Amino acid sequence: VDVFVPDDKHVFYSRSEFTYNPKLWPRDELHKDFLNLSHCFGAQRSTVRVPDLDPKYKISVLASKQDHCLFDLLYRWQEGRLPVDISCVISNHDRPEDNHVQRFLQRHGIPYHYLPTTSGNKREQEILELIEGTDFVVLARYMQILSESFLKSYGKDIINIHHGLLPSFKGGHPSRQAFNAGVKLIGATSHFVTTELDAGPIIEQMVERVSHRDTLQSFVVKSENLEKQCLAEAIKSYCELRVLPYELKKTVVF
Amino acid sequence: VDVFVPDDKHVFYSRSEFTYNPKLWPRDELHKDFLNLSHCFGAQRSTVRVPDLDPKYKISVLASKQDHCLFDLLYRWQEGRLPVDISCVISNHDRPEDNHVQRFLQRHGIPYHYLPTTSGNKREQEILELIEGTDFVVLARYMQILSESFLKSYGKDIINIHHGLLPSFKGGHPSRQAFNAGVKLIGATSHFVTTELDAGPIIEQMVERVSHRDTLQSFVVKSENLEKQCLAEAIKSYCELRVLPYELKKTVVF
Amino acid sequence: VDVFVPDDKHVFYSRSEFTYNPKLWPRDELHKDFLNLSHCFGAQRSTVRVPDLDPKYKISVLASKQDHCLFDLLYRWQEGRLPVDISCVISNHDRPEDNHVQRFLQRHGIPYHYLPTTSGNKREQEILELIEGTDFVVLARYMQILSESFLKSYGKDIINIHHGLLPSFKGGHPSRQAFNAGVKLIGATSHFVTTELDAGPIIEQMVERVSHRDTLQSFVVKSENLEKQCLAEAIKSYCELRVLPYELKKTVVF
Amino acid sequence: VDVFVPDDKHVFYSRSEFTYNPKLWPRDELHKDFLNLSHCFGAQRSTVRVPDLDPKYKISVLASKQDHCLFDLLYRWQEGRLPVDISCVISNHDRPEDNHVQRFLQRHGIPYHYLPTTSGNKREQEILELIEGTDFVVLARYMQILSESFLKSYGKDIINIHHGLLPSFKGGHPSRQAFNAGVKLIGATSHFVTTELDAGPIIEQMVERVSHRDTLQSFVVKSENLEKQCLAEAIKSYCELRVLPYELKKTVVF
Repeated sequence: VDVFVPDDKHVFYSRSEFTYNPKLWPRDELHKDFLNLSHCFGAQRSTVRVPDLDPKYKISVLASKQDHCLFDLLYRWQEGRLPVDISCVISNHDRPEDNHVQRFLQRHGIPYHYLPTTSGNKREQEILELIEGTDFVVLARYMQILSESFLKSYGKDIINIHHGLLPSFKGGHPSRQAFNAGVKLIGATSHFVTTELDAGPIIEQMVERVSHRDTLQSFVVKSENLEKQCLAEAIKSYCELRVLPYELKKTVVF
Repeated sequence: VDVFVPDDKHVFYSRSEFTYNPKLWPRDELHKDFLNLSHCFGAQRSTVRVPDLDPKYKISVLASKQDHCLFDLLYRWQEGRLPVDISCVISNHDRPEDNHVQRFLQRHGIPYHYLPTTSGNKREQEILELIEGTDFVVLARYMQILSESFLKSYGKDIINIHHGLLPSFKGGHPSRQAFNAGVKLIGATSHFVTTELDAGPIIEQMVERVSHRDTLQSFVVKSENLEKQCLAEAIKSYCELRVLPYELKKTVVF
Repeated sequence: VDVFVPDDKHVFYSRSEFTYNPKLWPRDELHKDFLNLSHCFGAQRSTVRVPDLDPKYKISVLASKQDHCLFDLLYRWQEGRLPVDISCVISNHDRPEDNHVQRFLQRHGIPYHYLPTTSGNKREQEILELIEGTDFVVLARYMQILSESFLKSYGKDIINIHHGLLPSFKGGHPSRQAFNAGVKLIGATSHFVTTELDAGPIIEQMVERVSHRDTLQSFVVKSENLEKQCLAEAIKSYCELRVLPYELKKTVVF
Repeated sequence: VDVFVPDDKHVFYSRSEFTYNPKLWPRDELHKDFLNLSHCFGAQRSTVRVPDLDPKYKISVLASKQDHCLFDLLYRWQEGRLPVDISCVISNHDRPEDNHVQRFLQRHGIPYHYLPTTSGNKREQEILELIEGTDFVVLARYMQILSESFLKSYGKDIINIHHGLLPSFKGGHPSRQAFNAGVKLIGATSHFVTTELDAGPIIEQMVERVSHRDTLQSFVVKSENLEKQCLAEAIKSYCELRVLPYELKKTVVF
C-alpha cells in the first residue's frame, strides 16, 4: 500500500497491490467493491487490474526514422517484460521488407503502417482510426507534433520519450542543444503528451555523465541508451498503475 | 598526461602532472622551460604550479544570506582539502558576532566585510578594491548579479554555484522552478561567471533523484547538499589546473 | 502511508505520517489508540512519535581518531538537520582542548569522555554507564569491536558506519582492501551492530566511481565523503521511524 | 593522449588516439615506427590498431542457458556498436531451431555449437579448437569454470561478466547471495578470467539501488540490465585498446 497526501490539499492518492484469489472474491465483485469504495471517497478516478486475468493494455506505437526505442520496446515485449499487446506500429518513415523491425513485426503478426507526413498533412485522421480501441499510445521517437484536436479526439494517455532533460532542451535536436551548451550531464525524459510541446507531466528522467571528450555522436549514443530505459520504465510503471496525474503538470509515481 | 584535441580544429589542450625535484630543476628554469615550450606551440595560455612550493591561490568569497556553501567551503579549507588562501569573505547580508561563520572567520583571522547592496548601489567599486590581488573569486550563493564593467575590471575568473541543472532554471528560485516543473531529478551547476546570467561555461554538474513526496523544502535541502559538493569540486579542479576554457561556452575538465 | 507485506509471510510492516492536532487528539489518547491498534494486529512493535512535541531521541556518539563522521554529525545537528539530543561523545582517542571537535562540544555544553582502551580493557562498563538513558548509540568510526555482553547489556540499537560496501571488505582497512582488489566502485555502508562483525542489518549504502588514477589516499577521501552522507542518512531515517528490522539480517527502510 | 604513471614505480602506461592518413604514413611504417618506439622505452607490450583498415577483433562467445547477455551482445554487434567479428557461439545449453538466438545466428551465418558438459567432461578440448584464431573470448554468462590448462592453452584474454559486485558474492547465485545479505545496492562486474574464480582483474562495475520491496526475481531483472551494459562496455573498451593489465590484479582503463 502506498498513500500520498499532498500538503494542504483535500485530496489523496493511493495504490494497493495484493495477492488476489478470484475464487474467494470474484472479479465482478472486486470491481463493484472498489467502485463503491471509490464513491465513498468521492474519487475522481479508480482503476483495478488483475494482471494475469484481465486483458493486457492494448497500445499502438508511433515512430519515425530512429528505431532504437521502437526496437528496444519490441524486444522487451517479446521477452515478456512489457505487459502490453501491441495492436500496430505506425511510422512516417518507410522501412524495407527485410529491415529488422519489419521482420520482427511480420514474425509476430503485428501490422506496420507507413503513413508519410507532409507539413500540410499529418495523417492524423488515419492515425486516429488505427489507434482506435487502444488503451494508450507510445511515441517511440515520433518526430511529429500531434495537434490539439488529435489529442482531444483520442482522449486517452500518450507517453512520449524526449532525448533531453526537460525542461531543458525542448523541441528539436536536444542532443545538439546539450552539446552546444557544454553540459556535463545529459538526460532523457519520458512524459505525457499535452498540447504544449515537451511540457507534459514528467514520468521518469535519467542522466549520464559526459565530458569534453564526448562528440555530438557520442552524446547521441549515450542518449539513446537512456531513452530506451527511460521509456520502458515509464510504460512498465504506467501498466502497473503506478503513475497518476497530480496537479496540472506533475505525476505521482508510486 | 592528458591531451585533448578537438575534431577538425587546429588547437590542443594538455595537462601534465609529474613528480618534481627543485634541486634537479630549479623553479626558475622550470618556468622558463615551459614558457619556451608554450612559445614553440604558440600556446595562448600556459600555467605551471608546484603545489607545495608556490604560494596558494588567493581567493575572496562572496556570499549572501544562505551560508551552507560558504561554511562548507570554510570547513573544507580548514581540513586542508581546498588548496587556497582566503583573503576575505564579502557579504551583502549582516551576521551577528556569535554567528558560526563569524566565529570561524575570527578564529582564523579572515576579514568579514558586510556590504549591504541596494538596487541602486551594488557596492561593486568597494568589492573590486577588496578582491584586488586575488587569483580568482568564488560566489558561494551570492544573490547579486555582477555588472559587465565589474567583470571587465576584475578581469580574472569568477566561479559561481547555481542551484539548478543549467541551462534549465536560470535566474531566481531555481528550486521553486524545478518543483513547479514536476521534475524527477534536481541538480546543481558550478560555472564561470560571464556577462550573460547563469550562462557561463559549465565546470561541474551533479544530480539527485526527487519524487512526488518531495516538498519545496526537501528540494532545497537536497539541492544544498549538491551545491556544496559541486562548488568544492569545481574549486579543487580549478586549483589543480584541470579546468580550461574551451570554445565560447565550454570547458575542458581534465 | 507505506505498507510492506513480504511474500508468503504472515506479517506486515507499516508506517503512517500525518498532520497531527494535539487539541483534537490528545497525546495520551494518541498513544493509547495506537497501542490498541497494535494489539488488534498482534504487532511485535509499535512506535508513535510527534516530532515537535515529544522529546528528541537522546544519543551518544562513539568515535576514535578519525573525526570526519563525528564532526559532520555535530555540524548537521547544529544546523537542525538531525533531530537528536547528543548526551555525550565518547572516544578512545585523546583530543587537545583547542581541537575543533573539543571547541564545538564545549560551546554547546556536550561532555567529551576520553576512555583509552587497551586490548585487555575495552572500558565497556564505563561506556555502558555513560550511555545509560540514551535511545540509541552511533558509532562514528569507532575502531573497537563491542562485545556480545556489551550489546546485551545496552539492549538498544547501535548504528555503525563501515567504510566499505558490505559484505565486501569486512573488518579493518576496507579502503586498503578495496584498493588492493582493484575495484572500480567504492562504497560505504551504515548498519546495525550485531555480535557478528560488520554483518548487522544494512540500513543504507552509497557508492562512488574510482579509477586506476585513484591512490589509496584518494580512496580514503572519497570514502569519507560517502561515510558522512551514509551515516547521516541512516540516523535521520531511524529518527523518522523509517527503519524497521526485517527477517534476521535485513531492514525495511520506508 | 592519456598517460598513467603509478607512484614509485618505474613504468608508465600510455594510449594515444589520432587521425590517421595511410597515404602520408603507410600502415607498415606506422607499425615499424611504433615498434621502434616501444623498443626505445623497453615496452612490455605495444599495440596499434587502425579501426577502419585493420581486420576487426575476432571473438567467440560462450554462453549457457541465460541469453540476455548473449542476445544483447549480438544486437549491439548488428547495430555496429561492437567492433568485432563473431566467429561462433558455443553453449553447453541446447536451443531449438526457432529460438531467437538461433534465428539471429542463422540469419547472419554465425555457427552455433552445442557442447553439453558434464562434471567429468567440460569439452574444453573441443572449445579450444573452436576458438582457435580468435583474438579474445567473451563469457556471456557461461556457467562453467574453465580449467587452468584451458586458460594456458588458449593464452589470450577472456572477458567474463559476473552478476555481483566483486569481490562480494563470488561463485554461484550472486543475486541470491545479495538478496539474502539484505544489501541496498546490487551490481555487476566485468573482469578478465584467471585461474582464481571470479578474482581476475576488474574492467568495469555498475550498480543499481534495491530496497526491501525487491524480490529475488526483481534482483535478477535489475542485475541482468546491469550485466548487459557492463559487459558491452568492457568489450568496447577492450577493442579500443583502453584496457591494460596493471599490477597483478588491476586494470588501467583509459
